[in-house]
Amino acid sequence: MPRAITAFSNPLVKQVRGLWDKKNRRREGLFIAEGLRILTEAREAGFLPETLFFNAAERHALLEALIAATEAAGGEAIETNADILHKLSGKDNPQAVLGVYRIFPTGLDRIDRSAADLWLVAQALRDPGNLGTILRTGDAVGAGGLILVDDCVDPFSPEAVRASMGALFTQKIAAAPWAEFIAWLRSGEGELVGTSLAADLDYQAARYAKPSFILIGNEAQGLPADYEAKCDLLIKIPMRGKADSLNAAVAAAVTAYEVTNQWRA
Amino acid sequence: MPRAITAFSNPLVKQVRGLWDKKNRRREGLFIAEGLRILTEAREAGFLPETLFFNAAERHALLEALIAATEAAGGEAIETNADILHKLSGKDNPQAVLGVYRIFPTGLDRIDRSAADLWLVAQALRDPGNLGTILRTGDAVGAGGLILVDDCVDPFSPEAVRASMGALFTQKIAAAPWAEFIAWLRSGEGELVGTSLAADLDYQAARYAKPSFILIGNEAQGLPADYEAKCDLLIKIPMRGKADSLNAAVAAAVTAYEVTNQWRA
Repeated sequence: MPRAITAFSNPLVKQVRGLWDKKNRRREGLFIAEGLRILTEAREAGFLPETLFFNAAERHALLEALIAATEAAGGEAIETNADILHKLSGKDNPQAVLGVYRIFPTGLDRIDRSAADLWLVAQALRDPGNLGTILRTGDAVGAGGLILVDDCVDPFSPEAVRASMGALFTQKIAAAPWAEFIAWLRSGEGELVGTSLAADLDYQAARYAKPSFILIGNEAQGLPADYEAKCDLLIKIPMRGKADSLNAAVAAAVTAYEVTNQWRA
Repeated sequence: MPRAITAFSNPLVKQVRGLWDKKNRRREGLFIAEGLRILTEAREAGFLPETLFFNAAERHALLEALIAATEAAGGEAIETNADILHKLSGKDNPQAVLGVYRIFPTGLDRIDRSAADLWLVAQALRDPGNLGTILRTGDAVGAGGLILVDDCVDPFSPEAVRASMGALFTQKIAAAPWAEFIAWLRSGEGELVGTSLAADLDYQAARYAKPSFILIGNEAQGLPADYEAKCDLLIKIPMRGKADSLNAAVAAAVTAYEVTNQWRA
């Protein structure tokens, strides 16, 4: 049976609100996901929250299923209201449900490269919206997951989770420094495809081998030159305007669709 | 000669900080753009700020050019510091320069459809990052501009301007309710291409006529059914994962690159 919390001063409310801060997420090993759609996707992928907050005024069949599954797995469901959910989520129009999940490990050993033909790799990605959007695109193109190289934004930040629309739970995620990533990559099959403004090879003229690892650089700097030098293919997306670059998540998507379009052709 | 402002209480500082609020932008007819790169792109496109704030500690040749052009055009350049720029921009690491520009008109009469083969159209777009990213992609694919249909987020919001990376100044922007847009569209040449999860036609199997107007729906709802019914082509982007949709800016980019790739093939 769900217990009810309606007091802002409740210590659990404070603790969960604290998970907006990366330091607290790391210390507690917990993160937040919001919304019935994302939490249901998580449940279908085998992830249940340790704590589930729901708006008692907005009950729904999918929410009942989520409550039942959470409690059956030993988690706690907490009945609350829109004001508390607003406090927890920081949103004016909070979702009717918010889950607190355990952060999962992100070692490269989580990646079984034979599980998919395509993997996305982001280097020093700074924007959580871009990170989440790349996860969402990875799901859409049938990629296996996203490998975060060097110092990237936290994939467990609420903004990244939200932008992923649940793909955080369906895509594999790993994080590693460049040297470790390259050593791992070269220990097996796989072609590293870098996107670069300096490349000569048009992304449609290139032919992509499986498994393909598409490497996207930092939003402001792109890829370091010595990283580009380690790529098997360096491709460029044609730019016909005044500006010289695309948003990082857009570049990832345009490349990933080209690769998978070639394979289905 | 630039005057100096270093007091937080200066009324101009308060006024400009107020431009983060849409109400104030509308009332004053002004908006903010930040960063030497975006402001230089604006200058090259013929747009100069009415007021230019710059960090006196970070002078640079491009900044000098911007100051000179602003003053020559009758605008005011104001020497200030990182603290004031932080207050104006809301960013911990503010850009060295911030411009206050006059909002430009967004009537459909600004759109000369013969000026480009491709135009992007967004309906009820809610996220300023998506709006700016679509403008940036429009620039990259050589689109003429972006038409905002129905109640979209403000293209002059600082977040949209930032995400556009200057494309706000190089792409044409118009805004109109759906009925007005459709009447305008049908008064001349142009194929309306809707992206839809319900469509049967693969976006690579479709053949696109010029000028093409690519219509992207709201982030959560997609396009209303009666809007889809008005499209000349309804296309779908293949989805191979658990989720059923792409980020709106990603869908716009993947479609726009397919259209222009077909034309260059």
